[in-house]
Amino acid sequence: MAAPLDFYFDFSSPYAYIAAMRIDALSAKHSRAVNWQPMLLGVAFKIAGTQPLTQYPLKGDYSRHDFSRSAREHDIAFNMPANFPLATLAAARGVLWLKQHQPQKAVPFAKAIYTAYFVEGRDISSPDTVVTIAETLGIDGAALRAGFESAEIKATLKDSIEDAVNKRGVFGAPFIFADGEPFWGADRLDMLDRWLTKGGW
Amino acid sequence: MAAPLDFYFDFSSPYAYIAAMRIDALSAKHSRAVNWQPMLLGVAFKIAGTQPLTQYPLKGDYSRHDFSRSAREHDIAFNMPANFPLATLAAARGVLWLKQHQPQKAVPFAKAIYTAYFVEGRDISSPDTVVTIAETLGIDGAALRAGFESAEIKATLKDSIEDAVNKRGVFGAPFIFADGEPFWGADRLDMLDRWLTKGGW
Repeated sequence: MAAPLDFYFDFSSPYAYIAAMRIDALSAKHSRAVNWQPMLLGVAFKIAGTQPLTQYPLKGDYSRHDFSRSAREHDIAFNMPANFPLATLAAARGVLWLKQHQPQKAVPFAKAIYTAYFVEGRDISSPDTVVTIAETLGIDGAALRAGFESAEIKATLKDSIEDAVNKRGVFGAPFIFADGEPFWGADRLDMLDRWLTKGGW
Repeated sequence: MAAPLDFYFDFSSPYAYIAAMRIDALSAKHSRAVNWQPMLLGVAFKIAGTQPLTQYPLKGDYSRHDFSRSAREHDIAFNMPANFPLATLAAARGVLWLKQHQPQKAVPFAKAIYTAYFVEGRDISSPDTVVTIAETLGIDGAALRAGFESAEIKATLKDSIEDAVNKRGVFGAPFIFADGEPFWGADRLDMLDRWLTKGGW
């Protein structure tokens, strides 16, 4: 089996949400596993000198229109949250803790967090909400909370983001690497699909 | 015949160049004419609070990699010009003058300007170079020069850009409208293709 796709995502990114809902089908088609890598875009934005799309004049309006249009094309439920963007530390750390302790729950948890935010408009910045969502998936909420509050997991997320930004040039989300080749943006999933089909060009 | 596609492009944009080389095939497939609208991204960047992609840390490196990759996928010749970006006033005004006086030459001229810059690395900021390129297409160089230096054409370009940015929300290039629906970026040509095939969604 070929190397996994490295999938960098931020729970506050609508385009990363759309990619998260599409990447399983894409990776299955090419017999690839997916390495789900939570990140915090704020760190990347600071280094790249950028900001959330919605905060730019003109580009912000287009983006809001395009979030819905892009989701609709792929039959992905989407409601732009009133409270946007959010700090998503607990959820991001939760994914990393699950990858270490209950790896089979990490992806369902990530998708449930995304749905809670981009469909149901829930406040996923709240650690309590994160725990509640985890418990609906049969995850031990107290253990998860202890995990995402641990110094070890905090350091793991910090190191992972610094590695992504400083060593791999990740400046946005979704950001996917296929055998080292970088693809940025939900609208690049189709190009990634063609790349994997052809073996690059 | 359905309404033309409005195609906004800047001669200094690699992604607009790629779109310019692909839009004829796309529009022909859907029996649409294309209204080629030259613009100057500097005006849009000022209002949107953005800058040329290549000037952002990280994003700049990715973009340079992606310009070549995107061109290569579609068998479009591309060499990143050493002198980038350029002021392209004479060429942009030249397109508008041709649309008024020799409309059948406007698109060949636009493509020849793009090729001179993104394949041959020529200095298309020079009015002399613009005139030389036009003459190879059988355009009267002196008439073109008088045209792009005229107050009327200068005002036409200024008004067109202000209309694009202030009334239509254009903040980048390529930017295409199909029956009012906006599509930004060379990588959205595939979505535009699907949109026109399905009649939207």
